[in-house]
Amino acid sequence: MFQQLGIIGCGLMGGSFALALKKAGLVRRVVGYSKSPSTTEAARRLGVVDVVADSALLATSGSDLVLLAVPVSATESTLRAIRHLVSPQTLVMDVGSTKQDVVLAAQKALGKHIESFVPAHPIAGKEKSGVANADADLYLGSQVVLTPLPSNRPELVQKAIDVWSALGCRVLRMEPRLHDAAFAAVSHLPHLLAYSYFNAVAAQTSGSDFMSLAGPGFRDFTRIAASEPGMWRDIFLSNRSELLQQLKHFRHQLDAMERALEEEDGSGLERVLRQASEGRSRWQEPSSRRRAIVKPKV
Amino acid sequence: MFQQLGIIGCGLMGGSFALALKKAGLVRRVVGYSKSPSTTEAARRLGVVDVVADSALLATSGSDLVLLAVPVSATESTLRAIRHLVSPQTLVMDVGSTKQDVVLAAQKALGKHIESFVPAHPIAGKEKSGVANADADLYLGSQVVLTPLPSNRPELVQKAIDVWSALGCRVLRMEPRLHDAAFAAVSHLPHLLAYSYFNAVAAQTSGSDFMSLAGPGFRDFTRIAASEPGMWRDIFLSNRSELLQQLKHFRHQLDAMERALEEEDGSGLERVLRQASEGRSRWQEPSSRRRAIVKPKV
Repeated sequence: MFQQLGIIGCGLMGGSFALALKKAGLVRRVVGYSKSPSTTEAARRLGVVDVVADSALLATSGSDLVLLAVPVSATESTLRAIRHLVSPQTLVMDVGSTKQDVVLAAQKALGKHIESFVPAHPIAGKEKSGVANADADLYLGSQVVLTPLPSNRPELVQKAIDVWSALGCRVLRMEPRLHDAAFAAVSHLPHLLAYSYFNAVAAQTSGSDFMSLAGPGFRDFTRIAASEPGMWRDIFLSNRSELLQQLKHFRHQLDAMERALEEEDGSGLERVLRQASEGRSRWQEPSSRRRAIVKPKV
Repeated sequence: MFQQLGIIGCGLMGGSFALALKKAGLVRRVVGYSKSPSTTEAARRLGVVDVVADSALLATSGSDLVLLAVPVSATESTLRAIRHLVSPQTLVMDVGSTKQDVVLAAQKALGKHIESFVPAHPIAGKEKSGVANADADLYLGSQVVLTPLPSNRPELVQKAIDVWSALGCRVLRMEPRLHDAAFAAVSHLPHLLAYSYFNAVAAQTSGSDFMSLAGPGFRDFTRIAASEPGMWRDIFLSNRSELLQQLKHFRHQLDAMERALEEEDGSGLERVLRQASEGRSRWQEPSSRRRAIVKPKV
């Protein structure tokens, strides 16, 4: 049980965390701060936060749990703003989709207070962002990756594991670099490809005519191309080198596929298609929207 | 009302067409032929066909409507096998995903009987193929593209429009070349990219670990990579030049995106992401699984 949760950034992710903690009876009071006062006010009106704070520092004051839910690019400045009120008992976490840059920002900003900061990436979201879409069950059944630092206080790492587990998440522990490579592969690259592909069709003279014929395959393949551009620009830039690396792997396969097509190599083509088809049929979505049965591997 | 429907190829597409015509009360008798006798037998047992024919020619005999639902690569030989029993009153259609090669095959195989052949592409399907998955409502609410030939008898073209419309489809009429370009863009290229992408992740040493972290974005983006390899090899090869053309458009966008990433050009990156995101948000799936309200534009 936490006495006070401080939410910095009262959007979909921060707001849903506050609602989930309240629903689970794990927090007495929620204090919230957002850059835009109208957001914080909306969060209060919706019952997401109990008290509005006028700054990130004031949202930290008196909080034994602080959740940063700001764009990854704002991590360093936000941590710098709150560091004076981070006590050894305070658990501070973020929700960023990249981790190496968050760790670097924390190292620069927090000094000795870095012992309190446990980087976290809950793998959850919705197409519609904003506090109005905050949902007490957003994290239920999701995976959460923690990338604890050697300097973290072990009891705070345990607290981080416990709180996400109590919200019905499966908690995984990884090195920041492996985390970033994995998400470049399974999330950031597909977004980049979906954005590129959509533009490639739309830019053609007959693009809209073509798209008026598209079916469910197109719909699902391009769904992520509707994602929020500002957020994804940040993610691409902050995970730039891993993403470029993954793009190399993709180009390698694409080149081979194109070559087989040019050479009308039917059996070569079928071999790679079969490989993908069999692999994809075997793949199972790790987290569906249900409470995970698997015990956290931590 | 048709006296007899001859189905050549009793799989998902052919079987569903037979069931839909029966459900709509549009056919008295269905005769079916498949290369594999066990398939035809299953189709009879499931009530998809009433009578089993021992050859494609026998399935054509006495039929005023013939549907070819065989792999595109088998179009020419199948048409050649049935041509002697195609009368001027018989409407013959296919269900292939490409049209220029089907038209070419028909021209080679049918001679003067080509007046009876109206190429058709119903935009419908399921991941699970085979007659066991045949479904009387598979085509309901779908679009069907017809690419009639100059030599077609006009009353047969009208019959083709009428029968698909009666099954709840929206019927469109296009030139074969435009059809193939459109489907290379909105269907064949996404499949090629999804297959390539899946293999690119799976081929990495940590590929399965990465994929155990994947979420709904990955799931939807790669769904079509599970499609049947043999069928898609045929589609890729038969629409090869249009597909290679679409791949050029894609590479152009991908290169620009990669360059922006390499140069850390945040605003350039955001501009292309916003373009895609806004375009995709505006796009509406033309055919959902409901009876089309729009009258056929023919």
